Amino acid sequence: MVDKFENIDMIEIITKKRDGEKLTKDEIKYFVDGYSAGEIPDYQASALLMAIYLNKMDEEETVNLTQSMRFSGDTIDLDSIKGIKVDKHSTGGVGDKVTLIVAPIAAACGVPIAKMSGRGLGFTGGTVDKMESIPGFKTTLEPEEFLKQVNEIGIAVIGQSGHLTPADKKIYALRDVTATIDNLSLISSSIMSKKLAAGSDKILLDVKCGEGAFMEDEEKAAELATMMCKIGKAAGKETMAVISDMNQPLGRAVGNSIEVIEAIDTLKGRGPEDITELTEKLAGIMIFLGGKAKTKEDGYELAKESIKSGTALNKMKEFMERQGADVNVINDYSLFPQAEYKVEIKAEKSGYINGIDAKIIGIASQHTGAGRAKKEDEIDYASGIYIEKKVGEGASVGDTLAIVCGNNREKVDRAASEARKAFKIGENSPKAFKLIKKIIEI
Amino acid sequence: MVDKFENIDMIEIITKKRDGEKLTKDEIKYFVDGYSAGEIPDYQASALLMAIYLNKMDEEETVNLTQSMRFSGDTIDLDSIKGIKVDKHSTGGVGDKVTLIVAPIAAACGVPIAKMSGRGLGFTGGTVDKMESIPGFKTTLEPEEFLKQVNEIGIAVIGQSGHLTPADKKIYALRDVTATIDNLSLISSSIMSKKLAAGSDKILLDVKCGEGAFMEDEEKAAELATMMCKIGKAAGKETMAVISDMNQPLGRAVGNSIEVIEAIDTLKGRGPEDITELTEKLAGIMIFLGGKAKTKEDGYELAKESIKSGTALNKMKEFMERQGADVNVINDYSLFPQAEYKVEIKAEKSGYINGIDAKIIGIASQHTGAGRAKKEDEIDYASGIYIEKKVGEGASVGDTLAIVCGNNREKVDRAASEARKAFKIGENSPKAFKLIKKIIEI
Repeated sequence: MVDKFENIDMIEIITKKRDGEKLTKDEIKYFVDGYSAGEIPDYQASALLMAIYLNKMDEEETVNLTQSMRFSGDTIDLDSIKGIKVDKHSTGGVGDKVTLIVAPIAAACGVPIAKMSGRGLGFTGGTVDKMESIPGFKTTLEPEEFLKQVNEIGIAVIGQSGHLTPADKKIYALRDVTATIDNLSLISSSIMSKKLAAGSDKILLDVKCGEGAFMEDEEKAAELATMMCKIGKAAGKETMAVISDMNQPLGRAVGNSIEVIEAIDTLKGRGPEDITELTEKLAGIMIFLGGKAKTKEDGYELAKESIKSGTALNKMKEFMERQGADVNVINDYSLFPQAEYKVEIKAEKSGYINGIDAKIIGIASQHTGAGRAKKEDEIDYASGIYIEKKVGEGASVGDTLAIVCGNNREKVDRAASEARKAFKIGENSPKAFKLIKKIIEI
Repeated sequence: MVDKFENIDMIEIITKKRDGEKLTKDEIKYFVDGYSAGEIPDYQASALLMAIYLNKMDEEETVNLTQSMRFSGDTIDLDSIKGIKVDKHSTGGVGDKVTLIVAPIAAACGVPIAKMSGRGLGFTGGTVDKMESIPGFKTTLEPEEFLKQVNEIGIAVIGQSGHLTPADKKIYALRDVTATIDNLSLISSSIMSKKLAAGSDKILLDVKCGEGAFMEDEEKAAELATMMCKIGKAAGKETMAVISDMNQPLGRAVGNSIEVIEAIDTLKGRGPEDITELTEKLAGIMIFLGGKAKTKEDGYELAKESIKSGTALNKMKEFMERQGADVNVINDYSLFPQAEYKVEIKAEKSGYINGIDAKIIGIASQHTGAGRAKKEDEIDYASGIYIEKKVGEGASVGDTLAIVCGNNREKVDRAASEARKAFKIGENSPKAFKLIKKIIEI
């Protein structure tokens, strides 16, 4: 129910923001609670959202919006877990199996990981779907069991449960149909309200930038990352962010079971270069945030060491076993769901790969059956796209650029013809680019 | 039903206006038709309205919006009426009985008046309510009867009938609850869509400015008037506008029957100075627009002459008689509904009246029972406020400033205590001000 505020009225709130004025904490709470409770109609909420979009919110308003949404439903209490809990969030990439790698690394280094992950929608995948492609893996745990597992083995990753941030869900759905998505305050408050409600002590954000990401340019990505770090700080939770490149898919595997295999490979020390670099950095920062390393650099070393020594892979095994998975898959990838159809995309000219459009690959992967267009869609875990030639590599006519796989021939064929368009082959080798563009700490 | 436009999508339309781009004619029509038909939801319409409010529409977009709303329902066909039909519209004032005076004057001078008027809502009155305070007066006529009457006696004024500009009604109602009323393009298109649908050949706008009016400053009023004249021209109907002062109520009577009495007095040549001046000017321009005078100045003279000679009063009598009214009221005002309670507002200090807040008087008059807060409210025709001392007049302690009247003692008392606050008495005589500030013709 909406608290009663004296002298607050929705038309007045819209008018203030329309006229470029700053909204008070109470006014923002009145809107969030009232809209969430169904007492403020959609048409007033959307008028306000457009006014916010065009006249913007300042940092204080954004923090207040975040906090109102954070407390609009249940919040997770992780206090019974010993140690500094560190959460990690990615703004969504293609081929992003990072959680499956950094979580066991950080846990192996003593940072408790009590994480809730999402499912995929549209062209970006979700960690929960990827985990469910492992035979036997359970992604739901009762709250007590979840906490107990983290205290006992240092790691648990489950699907979102509980009634978290309902106001954010409702506002996001409205933004989606009123052209009010792409606004700094609205994006950052949406992400941070969920992270703050999820109960960890510290937060690491992996903000993607490039064609396959929500933020196409680095400057905007850094602005978003900075705002989210400020929100975290204002809410009492130290937050850091890494801006990383998403101008091509991350790693070589895009799908579900093939991404898990790549994650396991990375924990074995034989993952693709980009995934290895990014996950060592992210895990290193988590180790630093969790108080298990004095500097970020020490964190990076500990992360590397946990792979070399096998402790990270062991932690992954322990984690999978505890959540019901068949751990034999770690040494026998044929136990994963397999794809019946495979179509190879061949190079039609010789040269160097100058670019692989991550968004096109993400959409094509979704169309193989690896992703969902609607929440209700079922996933074909074995399907997806495996990239044979990444940016900077050379290819001759007829070389395989990628393998598109799945269990529905029609879908695989369609996806292959789409994915083909993602590859740009040039005569010259492309300029070198940095995978990790910036680390934001405030 | 909404026409199907290829490649038009409401989210795209919102996005364009959000980003400051110009909407095409088809896009505007898609929105107006779709919203009117209930196929575009309120929340998308309000997001677009806020984007229009903040990023504005240019003249071409405003014309297209007007035309789409104009043709969203029925339109009136006045072709069977001989002569150049001239319509008049006021943006709404307090004590505005202008139509009841200019219509018979213009008709007496040979300009056919086929007019549909509105009812009052909020603090501004409506001509239809005022006419209905005349015993016997019928404000509804069948279309054929309406046209026949204009052809036979040159004048008919009725309440709005038919299903005119439903899109405007729906959009206006949404603007009212989303803080998107006060925008040049939205205001001008709303007014002009109705005027254009009402079928006259030419249009005269009486745009009020000042505290008691929608537009508080002259510059904004002139901007609105100019935009409306441009819309009229673009739609093929010559349109002129007069900017007139509304820093105090117009005339001395604010209500219904007391305003009709003041109108009749004015037609008898003994109306208040301001009403007399304004109506001679407005009627003069109507006579000019209707082709019955070579210049505006000639029009003013003809208007004056029609009062002096009694032809205007005779036309009023003919008009009232034809629409069923008891014409004895013209010479015996006691036949009008009478108020049981009268409360005098006395001057509490001596000096000169420096201002009378028209909005306060309008609201107080509404509260006597002369106006409506909601559409369904019933009107007490005899109630209202009679101003004894207008701006510039002197008053001594105890002099009557105004008389508040009505048939409900509680309402009259409440209204009197409100109306008292409208009067500003200063030691010195206020600066002279012009009633007619500007005439706009393009």
